[in-house]
Amino acid sequence: MIEVSIMTVGDEICIGQIVNTNASWIASHCTAIGAKIINHFAVPDERYAMINGLDMLIDNSDFVLITGGLGPTHDDITKPVLTEYFNDKLVLHELTYKRLEEMYNKRGTEFLERNKKLAYLPSKCKILINNSGSAPGMLFEQNGKYIISMPGVPSEMKDIMFNHVLPLIKSEIINNKSDVVLYKTLNTIGIPESHLADLLGNPDEFLNGGTLAFLPSYNGVKLRIGFSSENSKSAEEEINKIENYIRSRAGRFISGIGEEVITETVGKLLKEKRKTVSVAESCTGGLLGGAFTGIPGSSDYFSGGVIVYSNDAKINILGVPKDIINKFGAVSEETAIELAKNVREKFSTDYGISVTGIAGPGGGTKDKPVGTVWIGISDSKSTVAKKFVFADDRNINRELFVGRALGLLYMKLMDRL
Amino acid sequence: MIEVSIMTVGDEICIGQIVNTNASWIASHCTAIGAKIINHFAVPDERYAMINGLDMLIDNSDFVLITGGLGPTHDDITKPVLTEYFNDKLVLHELTYKRLEEMYNKRGTEFLERNKKLAYLPSKCKILINNSGSAPGMLFEQNGKYIISMPGVPSEMKDIMFNHVLPLIKSEIINNKSDVVLYKTLNTIGIPESHLADLLGNPDEFLNGGTLAFLPSYNGVKLRIGFSSENSKSAEEEINKIENYIRSRAGRFISGIGEEVITETVGKLLKEKRKTVSVAESCTGGLLGGAFTGIPGSSDYFSGGVIVYSNDAKINILGVPKDIINKFGAVSEETAIELAKNVREKFSTDYGISVTGIAGPGGGTKDKPVGTVWIGISDSKSTVAKKFVFADDRNINRELFVGRALGLLYMKLMDRL
Repeated sequence: MIEVSIMTVGDEICIGQIVNTNASWIASHCTAIGAKIINHFAVPDERYAMINGLDMLIDNSDFVLITGGLGPTHDDITKPVLTEYFNDKLVLHELTYKRLEEMYNKRGTEFLERNKKLAYLPSKCKILINNSGSAPGMLFEQNGKYIISMPGVPSEMKDIMFNHVLPLIKSEIINNKSDVVLYKTLNTIGIPESHLADLLGNPDEFLNGGTLAFLPSYNGVKLRIGFSSENSKSAEEEINKIENYIRSRAGRFISGIGEEVITETVGKLLKEKRKTVSVAESCTGGLLGGAFTGIPGSSDYFSGGVIVYSNDAKINILGVPKDIINKFGAVSEETAIELAKNVREKFSTDYGISVTGIAGPGGGTKDKPVGTVWIGISDSKSTVAKKFVFADDRNINRELFVGRALGLLYMKLMDRL
Repeated sequence: MIEVSIMTVGDEICIGQIVNTNASWIASHCTAIGAKIINHFAVPDERYAMINGLDMLIDNSDFVLITGGLGPTHDDITKPVLTEYFNDKLVLHELTYKRLEEMYNKRGTEFLERNKKLAYLPSKCKILINNSGSAPGMLFEQNGKYIISMPGVPSEMKDIMFNHVLPLIKSEIINNKSDVVLYKTLNTIGIPESHLADLLGNPDEFLNGGTLAFLPSYNGVKLRIGFSSENSKSAEEEINKIENYIRSRAGRFISGIGEEVITETVGKLLKEKRKTVSVAESCTGGLLGGAFTGIPGSSDYFSGGVIVYSNDAKINILGVPKDIINKFGAVSEETAIELAKNVREKFSTDYGISVTGIAGPGGGTKDKPVGTVWIGISDSKSTVAKKFVFADDRNINRELFVGRALGLLYMKLMDRL
């Protein structure tokens, strides 16, 4: 098996100022071609921490993939540290210099001394051209192991991963006849983790050496099957066997496969059934529409919607009778029903979905605590609204509201509502 | 200095199926009280990987904070591994058992054997009550170091962090008279990283032992100042001195401080000026409204908007003349202007913002490649639209479009547009 470590360099990751999306992107793309990710390691912009990390990771891995610390400012230390670590020195790399010069000329921004430094690179490494930015990648080889440094800017890292790193890992897997480990994920809706586990029974009896993970999410539990084998084909076959067993026990709860998110599942169903949908959003403020339109091709079934954040908007734009809001409140079954029905009619869609709730931190009452939401769903035959009560955190609530709205539409499309 | 390592256990993190938001949350909250995060380490659900990681992290840190792997299914291995690691055994913890029983009774879901196992806990650890879920935290002490295990569910982890872990770290800092390291971030808009670095000059001349990091983001470069000192007061004073110097050189580019995002900066300005805003979104599908409403209290200035994803919606709901769309296209200066003006009028707000672009992957042409966006901004005096061309990735484009729309509103509010 080709084993990969991911090392992220940067105070901004280490102190939690930003989330480490690079590590998960790299991990998922290496996993997809059968490599095994053995760890993610994040360190601050500090020489000592980097060197210690390198010592540990190189020992245990075939590939160490490093991101971050390649920029033009004084806190970018990856290049000097790697140069020191491999007893190397910086030399001018002509091609990189020319590329930089052209890039700055094209943009019309001044080519500063500070930027020219990016063309001085360690003499022993192989330079990996970066088509998306200024700092190239660097590949060092040591005792049959590869240490690769890439910029932390996601688009630049991805450019180098696609053009250089993933092809190299793939060829190593083939050349070394390494085992591969593959995964497949089944998404479920409508069953809690423990009940699902009981329904499937003892994993040892059907896994045949594979692995099975239960992953709770906002929209339901995901089941991830893993299998390590001598080649992709046999790993896939074993995974299919496990999938078939799981489907025989819990098939009715499985809504989608792979990394498919519920927005895709629902989108596919809408497309198949040639149905369209529109949304009326209060507390989610556009996030449900944002979720639908996150899927390429969503214009086939998503027409749009109204963000009715203020009560005035609910009344004036979507025609909710003032009396209903006064009598029942903006967060009520009645308002949710009006919103869902009216947005469907206004946009002439097959379905209308409404979300009106209290995301927090303010606005909660004893009867309607923070986390309360009414979700309405309307078609030409009927309009209903369901109430859910979630937690205290504004952002989590808004995600949960969106997830539950999509879940309700899924159940509606499957005639299970 | 109190040094903290964060260890995340779980295949889902390691293979990149989900992003490690727990690590960044823990890191930012420990950093805020003056502890130093020395690394993040993520490992798969594997006994050997966990034990190796523990060996390394315990050696180097005062606290090892572990999340994940405490659930009720077979792939949750953190508890057995820690029990083995500390030569301990599992015993029934009465209080936890009672809490679990009550919780399941209250929810009306069956208290399965599988769930009862959660009450069997290592005898030597201190149990940290979890008010948000079923698996409690566990605190082990070894040679003056603390090893703390928490569930991976974010709300449960946060509950235990707030109630147990952060207070303990705080008291350790005070009791040991440890140095603290504090940070402050200044957000800039409208100046590239290299130019900002040149404007500030040689950091050694004004940092006085502190640190300065340049963090490029979708909305501008952030400058993070750090200072380590014997107490919070003196660290804050030194940070203020550095901030004053930076403001004297680059003050006109600084839009906000701390972890304030541009949505907050713009929200504050709107509140101060008693202005309101509405949005008309095509390709962003609601994400701009979602960004505005992510800020608590945004109802003071954000009224709502229309998601005009289809051309029909642009024409029928927001009254864009059909001729304009036919002649100039949906992604055009003319359409952006109509949308911004009409949404402002429809919602009776002071400002209207529109976003119409091609997020990709499809829909690009030679004249209007993927990444092209027109952003309109309207007030009672005038309506203008600006064009930007970004990259190829749908999700990144949508984030960039939202960021640039907020940037334009900021410039408008500062009379700099």
